Amino acid sequence: MRITIVGLGLIGGSMAIDLRKRGFASHIIGVDSNKLHAKTALNIGLIDQVSNLEDAISETELIILAIPANETIRLLPKVLDKVKNQIVTDVCSIKANVCERIKYHSNRLNFVASHPMAGTENSGPWSAESGLYDGKAVIFCDAEDSNPQALNVVTKMYDYLNMRPIYMNAYNHDVHVAYVSHISHISSFALALTVLDKEKNEKNIFDLASGGFDSTVRLAKSSAEMWSTIFENNSENVISVLDTYIEKLKEFKLAIQKNENGQVSDLINKANRIKKIL
Amino acid sequence: MRITIVGLGLIGGSMAIDLRKRGFASHIIGVDSNKLHAKTALNIGLIDQVSNLEDAISETELIILAIPANETIRLLPKVLDKVKNQIVTDVCSIKANVCERIKYHSNRLNFVASHPMAGTENSGPWSAESGLYDGKAVIFCDAEDSNPQALNVVTKMYDYLNMRPIYMNAYNHDVHVAYVSHISHISSFALALTVLDKEKNEKNIFDLASGGFDSTVRLAKSSAEMWSTIFENNSENVISVLDTYIEKLKEFKLAIQKNENGQVSDLINKANRIKKIL
Repeated sequence: MRITIVGLGLIGGSMAIDLRKRGFASHIIGVDSNKLHAKTALNIGLIDQVSNLEDAISETELIILAIPANETIRLLPKVLDKVKNQIVTDVCSIKANVCERIKYHSNRLNFVASHPMAGTENSGPWSAESGLYDGKAVIFCDAEDSNPQALNVVTKMYDYLNMRPIYMNAYNHDVHVAYVSHISHISSFALALTVLDKEKNEKNIFDLASGGFDSTVRLAKSSAEMWSTIFENNSENVISVLDTYIEKLKEFKLAIQKNENGQVSDLINKANRIKKIL
Repeated sequence: MRITIVGLGLIGGSMAIDLRKRGFASHIIGVDSNKLHAKTALNIGLIDQVSNLEDAISETELIILAIPANETIRLLPKVLDKVKNQIVTDVCSIKANVCERIKYHSNRLNFVASHPMAGTENSGPWSAESGLYDGKAVIFCDAEDSNPQALNVVTKMYDYLNMRPIYMNAYNHDVHVAYVSHISHISSFALALTVLDKEKNEKNIFDLASGGFDSTVRLAKSSAEMWSTIFENNSENVISVLDTYIEKLKEFKLAIQKNENGQVSDLINKANRIKKIL
């Protein structure tokens, strides 16, 4: 199948590698407003050619938008304006605003809203890697609003990426990813800010990082461009879970301050319940 | 060298594996108040024999205390009471209270306060693994209070474990590990509590975990027995950094609520500075 990938970063680039290697894509056209990303993606062989959006749409059967949330919301209606039989999908970490934006578009049926739950803290085409999606979950949102044939093609694509499909409506998706994924990023960004603030000696940060900091702060290296628009588009759910998180930290603080009756142990034992799930 | 390891969990067990394999230890006696841990450590070959503390001390040249902070503080003076020429070291994540406890002990010179900065979220002798310490830092505290010959032996031991030595006084150690390591664990415990609280559907937690939650929550699987006494013995420093962490989270919340002038992006870009250090 001839496909277009709009956005040649970690997400789009990693899709390109495995979709070609595993025989789903026969020809990949790359579109990126960042000329360096486009040129790099071509040079390292992620894509077969660089093109503008309009030509790319007319020359391919499937268009994947792998760009930040605000860009997706802005660009998706324009892409749908131009399609005939082409299928369009996105990879956004927020879904309600995306689906809302094109709810009444005449080509809504051509669009499949999807969210592959995978990534690393790195960005750009240089960070693309084979196997990034293997074994992870992909969430299809409002699947009943897509043409079954379009849904089949996109499902097949994620099957080539070895992903497990899950189905949710867009609103529920945003609630649950705020609870499980978005809060992890805020916890990590705030941790980095705290340690940079308190520990003035950078050598200490490097030396002591193996005491747990390295793994919890990994996500704090994630892209501002991508994550600021995710939080913006899911602010209500994110703030609700952030309030709970701050409450839990205050409980911890109080328990440490009082230091009686094993309250700290109780909190840690409760937190340990996560072992049974993951 | 004949050595005793008191506490046959992840930390003591992993030391046993590599100290024997790499030729530092010729005979390892294990001491553990948990009979199952002691029996398991013997069965899986971590140690050569199980013994009581008194016999173990008299039959070996180096005694390693690999037990939780409160246990270390309780047991260390009793061990020092019994030594003649033997060397004693510990592996505690807090140091001021440990060093304070034996500051005026007549055998203080025989003791080397050390903190190998390595671990996993697992515990028990079953979790011991070769290579756990390779390339990580080990902090020696108040090294000038130890006999140079004792310091040499313990330094050599950590050299066999491929660890990088760092020197700090016990007070500074506790400040810096609170800033870099202890806060990471609280951030992770509180994250687990938050997600368990907000997300009632455990299947969603499992399905969505690859969106960042899995890596930030790893530390929340850590042992309550170990961490509650660490926080107890370093409460002042831990509370100070916890206050800053809560402040940073509130800044994030406010920025998301206001959603103007790229404030969220600014915070994330600041957090991204951690990339230059790690």
